[in-house]
Amino acid sequence: MNYTAEATAALDRIDATKPLVHQITNVVVTNDSANLTLGFGALPVMAYAIEEVAEMAAIAQALVLNIGTLSSEEIAAMLVAGRAAGDKGIPIVLDPVGAGATRFRTESALTLLRELPITVLRGNRGEIGALVGSGEVRGVEATGSEDPHEVAKAARDRFGVTVAVTGPTDVIVGLDRTLLVDNGDPLLGRITGSGCMSTAAIGIFNGIGGDPALQTALALATYGLAAERAAVDAPGPGTFRSRLLDEVAALREKGVEGVRIREA
Amino acid sequence: MNYTAEATAALDRIDATKPLVHQITNVVVTNDSANLTLGFGALPVMAYAIEEVAEMAAIAQALVLNIGTLSSEEIAAMLVAGRAAGDKGIPIVLDPVGAGATRFRTESALTLLRELPITVLRGNRGEIGALVGSGEVRGVEATGSEDPHEVAKAARDRFGVTVAVTGPTDVIVGLDRTLLVDNGDPLLGRITGSGCMSTAAIGIFNGIGGDPALQTALALATYGLAAERAAVDAPGPGTFRSRLLDEVAALREKGVEGVRIREA
Amino acid sequence: MNYTAEATAALDRIDATKPLVHQITNVVVTNDSANLTLGFGALPVMAYAIEEVAEMAAIAQALVLNIGTLSSEEIAAMLVAGRAAGDKGIPIVLDPVGAGATRFRTESALTLLRELPITVLRGNRGEIGALVGSGEVRGVEATGSEDPHEVAKAARDRFGVTVAVTGPTDVIVGLDRTLLVDNGDPLLGRITGSGCMSTAAIGIFNGIGGDPALQTALALATYGLAAERAAVDAPGPGTFRSRLLDEVAALREKGVEGVRIREA
Repeated sequence: MNYTAEATAALDRIDATKPLVHQITNVVVTNDSANLTLGFGALPVMAYAIEEVAEMAAIAQALVLNIGTLSSEEIAAMLVAGRAAGDKGIPIVLDPVGAGATRFRTESALTLLRELPITVLRGNRGEIGALVGSGEVRGVEATGSEDPHEVAKAARDRFGVTVAVTGPTDVIVGLDRTLLVDNGDPLLGRITGSGCMSTAAIGIFNGIGGDPALQTALALATYGLAAERAAVDAPGPGTFRSRLLDEVAALREKGVEGVRIREA
Repeated sequence: MNYTAEATAALDRIDATKPLVHQITNVVVTNDSANLTLGFGALPVMAYAIEEVAEMAAIAQALVLNIGTLSSEEIAAMLVAGRAAGDKGIPIVLDPVGAGATRFRTESALTLLRELPITVLRGNRGEIGALVGSGEVRGVEATGSEDPHEVAKAARDRFGVTVAVTGPTDVIVGLDRTLLVDNGDPLLGRITGSGCMSTAAIGIFNGIGGDPALQTALALATYGLAAERAAVDAPGPGTFRSRLLDEVAALREKGVEGVRIREA
Repeated sequence: MNYTAEATAALDRIDATKPLVHQITNVVVTNDSANLTLGFGALPVMAYAIEEVAEMAAIAQALVLNIGTLSSEEIAAMLVAGRAAGDKGIPIVLDPVGAGATRFRTESALTLLRELPITVLRGNRGEIGALVGSGEVRGVEATGSEDPHEVAKAARDRFGVTVAVTGPTDVIVGLDRTLLVDNGDPLLGRITGSGCMSTAAIGIFNGIGGDPALQTALALATYGLAAERAAVDAPGPGTFRSRLLDEVAALREKGVEGVRIREA
């Protein structure tokens, strides 16, 4: 498959259709995720109130759920939004931030996976590992040594969803194929919310339809490619963070030669 | 009227008196709005707890209410803060983010308009339209085709407040005059919260007194002028966002030749 | 004492041990504080839910409590987290943002000081003054004229904790010594959350152990030194804010000649 052509077509389609991506996400990354969504040419909407999430999710093209600063009220709103999305066949992407660090996070993520028709689950090795009974997490950072491919496969088998375990190489285990993405830059690890932003990107690309594993790979590859470009001569993470948004917004103009996706 | 002189005088007065602008706003734009307020030389305070909002609003020079990530608790706090501001004659600026997208947003905005002595209502064409029974909104973006001047006039007549409908040309319909502002840059549409920041600017300029329509026009024109300067050679929205704050903070030093305000 | 050598050793130890800094902080500064923590080489975790804060605090190396956008639920969570930290001997840093501006803020800060084994209290002159019965605050900015040294000493005596009153010169009154820090730049006053970020830095440096007053001085001096470097040729506060994070992340590479700490 010509992944450069696929990525180009996906970016064009996002730009043309401007999918509305409803995000119930954490307070650390709210602004960055909204800006990333605009950068890709899609429309973000951050809406959390239980009174309105069903209505908002039902008019969206994708729903992104991120438990980074979860509360019991927020989980309740996520369940309402997720059911509305499920009723309409709208893809749902879940980021179980910090699963394994506290029981509340692990159990909340498992509840969402059990109750909602999640399309894609994205986390680091420790977070996804915690959901399948392995994995070590310190705060919200993975510290264990599991093989990401094994962790992703175990989660796919357990939950029946497409799973992306991100790291130096991102591993995407879909229902019928496994894709690997080699894009990215170490500076992503020096800014907060870079994983959460990759989850938002997955929501955007799944908002235009298509195979969830492929769309997830295209999202991670283009986001990682923008990060590579932003990192060139970056004096540090602060400037990198601003340039990352510049480069995401410039992807269509500069082209996406350089996406590195391969089948496992 | 010499609007350049008016804008210069307003910026000087903000710098000299440092109005305290109490903002109950959404989580997407909180940081940007606080930085914008400091950039203009005013003092921001973000305070949401129902236990303290009356006390805080009463010592402020302006109150900004923004429903971008509303909750029922937040609306209750806005009502308490707004009544305290009203009792003291402190101007209140309302941004009905996403009105029309969900019933909860539309009804909450209408409740605030009915219960509080709002001074200025600022939104895009779709949001303001939704409050007067027209308008199409997708998430928080306007998509309809109404004439902004008609929408603003209808809202002014309905609610008896100064109304600003922002867009390529901002239309400000005051109680006895209509002003148009032509400043701004398309890059504002590529960063999240640019509308919310314009509302914060309106709060700042109304915090120094004066006619609400004129102060609103001065706020939108100087903010838009800073955006024009920030956009020069900007490589993308991330860098633009940082430079926008630089340029707001430099307005007094660089001067405001370039504000484009006219009577309709 | 050779403070340059002390600061170098502290930065190396942070980088080597990556202390986990649990922060319950305000929505204005959440993103900046998390990025600052990563910039210093430590790990941030923002977790607020009462269901999980005890568990999270117990695995952290420091707990930072910041009441900038407090609510009664958040104060309740801070008490639970603080008790868990106290049980484990984990240092707790408190930032009483806006104490003196409203009764709710003053009383909440006093409750935390009374109920929890706070290690370091950090605020501006007005905030700390309000806690000892003097001080004037306008919103969250100090406006009074008290001598910062007197204010800090009064708070140390009243609460039995190390107190840092930050300003042009930071005054740190420990249990058995007083240190002064002369680093910093006026541009810090032009960005929101610069005080809150200094509190996060104090949490990071106290997360590696050592004398609280010394660790606090090292935190404020290195943070202030990074600000001085970021301010060189900065066109304004927006660009300065990005560069500040660049310079924090570059402290180990560039070295910390330039920290200005002295005994009072």
